Formats: sequence, C-alpha cells, structure tokens
Amino acid sequence: MKKDSAPKLVIVGSIGIDTIETPREKRVEILGGSVSYACAAASFFVKTGMVGVVGTDFPSEHRNLWKKMGIDLAGLQTEEGKTFRWSGVYEANMDNRRTLLTELNVFERFTPELPEAYRDAPYLFLGNIAPELQLHVLEQVRSPKFVLIDTMDLWINIAREKLVQVVGKCDMLTLNESEARLFTGEHSLMDAAKALLAMGPRFVLIKKGASGSMLFSKTGIFLLHAFPLADFKDPTGAGDTFAGGLMGALAESGGTGETEIRRAMLYGSVTAAFGVEEFSLERLAVLDRKQIEARAKMLRSMCAIN
Amino acid sequence: MKKDSAPKLVIVGSIGIDTIETPREKRVEILGGSVSYACAAASFFVKTGMVGVVGTDFPSEHRNLWKKMGIDLAGLQTEEGKTFRWSGVYEANMDNRRTLLTELNVFERFTPELPEAYRDAPYLFLGNIAPELQLHVLEQVRSPKFVLIDTMDLWINIAREKLVQVVGKCDMLTLNESEARLFTGEHSLMDAAKALLAMGPRFVLIKKGASGSMLFSKTGIFLLHAFPLADFKDPTGAGDTFAGGLMGALAESGGTGETEIRRAMLYGSVTAAFGVEEFSLERLAVLDRKQIEARAKMLRSMCAIN
Repeated sequence: MKKDSAPKLVIVGSIGIDTIETPREKRVEILGGSVSYACAAASFFVKTGMVGVVGTDFPSEHRNLWKKMGIDLAGLQTEEGKTFRWSGVYEANMDNRRTLLTELNVFERFTPELPEAYRDAPYLFLGNIAPELQLHVLEQVRSPKFVLIDTMDLWINIAREKLVQVVGKCDMLTLNESEARLFTGEHSLMDAAKALLAMGPRFVLIKKGASGSMLFSKTGIFLLHAFPLADFKDPTGAGDTFAGGLMGALAESGGTGETEIRRAMLYGSVTAAFGVEEFSLERLAVLDRKQIEARAKMLRSMCAIN
Repeated sequence: MKKDSAPKLVIVGSIGIDTIETPREKRVEILGGSVSYACAAASFFVKTGMVGVVGTDFPSEHRNLWKKMGIDLAGLQTEEGKTFRWSGVYEANMDNRRTLLTELNVFERFTPELPEAYRDAPYLFLGNIAPELQLHVLEQVRSPKFVLIDTMDLWINIAREKLVQVVGKCDMLTLNESEARLFTGEHSLMDAAKALLAMGPRFVLIKKGASGSMLFSKTGIFLLHAFPLADFKDPTGAGDTFAGGLMGALAESGGTGETEIRRAMLYGSVTAAFGVEEFSLERLAVLDRKQIEARAKMLRSMCAIN
C-alpha cells in the first residue's frame, strides 16, 4: 500500500474513550469507538480512511497507534472540547452488558466532512451513527461500488424514517438479532431478514455474537459460525471489528458478489475473534496477516463438509 | 431393506405419552419419548431396532405408525401398567421449557433386554436413560463398530460415577451446552469438550439448539449450523431426532471417521428441522428421503465458502 494513495475503503463512526468492567478486570479510559475498531480490522486488508471526531483532550498515543496500523487519518476531525466517553459493565459470563455512562461531548456536534481524496472511495462503511449523518456521508461519495450500513436500537426507535431512507440506498445492512426483531416486529430471523431486504439492500447480515452470523440475500442464505475461542477478555467492539474486517477483505477482493462476501465474512469473523482476546485494540495492534490467514484456514476447515 | 434382516442400528431410550403446551397450541396425550423420535429419524437411512418399554395402555395406532415407518419392534417390551407420561409447557418464543409432570409408570422397572437379532448390530445409540441401563445394553451388544451415548442433567447429578464409566466405553458423547458445563464445571465449551474427551470418547458433540452443534475430537472441531426455519411448532425431541438421523446416516455410510460423521450430522440437522415443524412424529410420518436430500443440499450450500 502506498502511503499517499487514496483509501480504497472509507469508514465513518464513533470514537470514544471507554471505561469497561468485566467480571475479572476493570480498564479505565481506553481507546474505543466503532470507527476505531472497524478501521483497525480493515487495515490488515486495504488502505482505510477514518471519518470521525475527537476532542482536544484526545491522547496522541491513540492517534499514533492508528498511524502505525496504516490507517489514513485525513478524515479525522479534532474539535474544541472533550472526546466522547462511554462506560459499561459486563455481567457474569459476559452474556449481558449494562451501560453506566454515555457522554457525547464533541460527538454531539459532529458533522462528518470527507476530504477530497475520500470521495472516490469504491467501498464505504457507514458505522453506527445517526442516520442523517450516515446519509450526509453517503452523499459525499461520488459512486461507491459497495456500501455497508450498521445501526442500533436507538436510531430504530427515534429516527426510523430517516434510517429506512438511508438503508434503501445501501448494498448491505448489518445489525444484531434483537435489532433485526425491533426494526421489523418479526421474531423469526427469516421473516425479519425478508422485511429488511424489502427496504432495498441486496444483502442483510444478522450478527449473533458467539453463535456466528447469517447473510441473507434475495436468493439465499449463508451461515457462518464464529471462530471458537476458549477464552476472551472483552467483547466490546466485536461487531465493529467483524464488519471492518469484512469490508477490508471485500475491498481487497474488488468484488461485490455473494461469493466474495462469504469469503470476506470469514475474514471478519477471524479478525473479531482476535480482537476480543484483549481490551481495546491491544490484540489487533500486534496482529499480522499471517496469523489472520492461519485462523481463516482453520475456520474454513471447521466448516467444511466433504 | 429386507424386512426380516437384523437391524444395522439399535437405539434404546424412553417412550412417553406427552402433553405439550406451546404459546399457540396445546396437544394432549401425543406420542413422544427419545427412542420414538430417534428411531423415526434413523428409519429414513437404515433398518433400525427399537429398545424400550410401553404399558398395556399404549395405543396400537402409535405402534402401527412405527411399523409403517419400517422400525423394527422386536426389542419393544410391553409391561403391565401405564406408559410413561410427560407434560411440559413452552414459554413465549419457545426459548424455555418447564416440566409440569413426570410419571415414570412402567419405565420405572425397565430392564432393557435385547433380542438375539440385535446383538450383532454394528451401530448403537444409547439414548437418555439411567447410565446403569445404558451399560446393561452396551454389554449385550457383542462388538459394536460405533456407539453414541446421550445423557441429561439428572444423571450427571445423581449417577455421575456410573455415567463416567459408560461414557468411557463409547465412541461419541452427545449433550447440550448446559449439560456439558454441568458435567465438567467448565463454562467455556472448548474447555468442557476437552474435559469430556479426556473421559474416553473419540468424539464429543455439543448441541446448541437453533444455534447448531459443535463436534470435538482430539484433532479438531467441526461447526454446523441448524437448518434455518421461518417457523416451527414443537421443539420437543429435536435433539433425539438430530442424534437419530445422525446415527442412521452414519450407519448407512458404514464409516466411523470424522468425514462420515460430519456428513451424518448434516442429515441429523435436516431431519430435526423437519421434525419440529409439527408435534410428535406428525411431520416425520409424511417425510421422504427425497425431501431430506433436498434440504441437505440446501444446508450444504448455505455453509459453503468457495
């Protein structure tokens, strides 16, 4: 990858300073946010441009880590004030998470503006932010080949109309099981996926955490298990890491069809499995492509029926 | 299959008259029991012999249905008294089940005795009954090629030592997630599987309901999704149907290796997905091999990464 070349993939999302408590450990003021996880994961595959906002208090060490991972920061805005803060606690067995604190800070006035070099990016990932901001980003990219959009229960509840509008302009929607049910009112994931496809995207990707993920299209279904781990430290950002790895691998392939998406999901799953082994980007920061390929090969053989 | 040939697969387990309530429907006094579901599923693949007990009140229509499905009933005992009764209710979304009533009746004095024609069966499935009865059945089969054993929380709690003894004599153990954790004290399924393999079996199959199943061996892991269904009526017996279909397909293949087991799991999963579409054996009774093959092909393609 040439350092001065335009990014092939652009990702927009949140950047936060997180405080996370698990049954075994508490970590204070660590690097988090959807775009941080997603760009880190994608950076193993293609040159990735980050669109997000931090405050003037944002530690330079985090910025340096992103740079070291090869992430393009031309789309990163620094605004007067404090960076977004989030704090959460995981219950026993890490099955449930409670949010203790959300402080929007500079994120509240965030208006994503893309540098000129980002506007011809063929691949775009609209991470989980307000649908009107997702639309604003989408309108700045001239002719994207493939756009993935993520969302959350908050936007489904308070900005449903705008969300439906922007989802209809994207190639693929990703959300988790409960969000798919909330968005459609359907309990069955098959019925929920059908309703979501009817909104316009060619693909709907439902994430099921440790149970894997399901890709729905008008013609079929693809079922992928999560890479099985004996242990993990922090599941925060796993969905963003999965989606970031997926989009990185898809952009690297240059394709937009189901065969390429299936392969890209394999890479997303493996990258996410590395990510949760440590807090924040700590595992991804020391990960290399060779380790990713080794696990991708393992997962592929774990799913094979000959 | 010649009608008078010895069964290639023998299955022992419970036979019950069930009363089942789901959020949408209540069905009173219908045919149930692990060996009923398992034999019905296996019967699509090989001649299967049933070992179980019913009371003198057992309706002849149920016996006729088994016969019509080609199940060998030489190992079915009829004892003076009432057939085993079970009653349960499924909560909203079918995620949890509560037992309302268990009446052992003739099942309480059950001592499984195998007809001579069953004692050379190459494949044996020890369904969920007391470990000492499973051992008693195992000792009557001269030189089985492959033995699968199922169990439940009750035996793990009250007959652990005997259970460990019989598991050590089998080729494969199947149980669900929570039973695997209870049996080993390990929360991680990877660690639980390791501990279970250390008891002696070559394979451990952990069932995860709608999330699929995981096959562990000393050398690797196989991950299989459940066949996705938009709707289902009654999940009772799904695990038994899965295991019965698996053992039927494995016996048909004649193999005992991981490649054959992976393929057999695909058939087990598909057969179970048909079974839950109706109560009792109602869907399996009108199922044919062609429908099974069509879904097996679909599931295979839903899991393929090219």
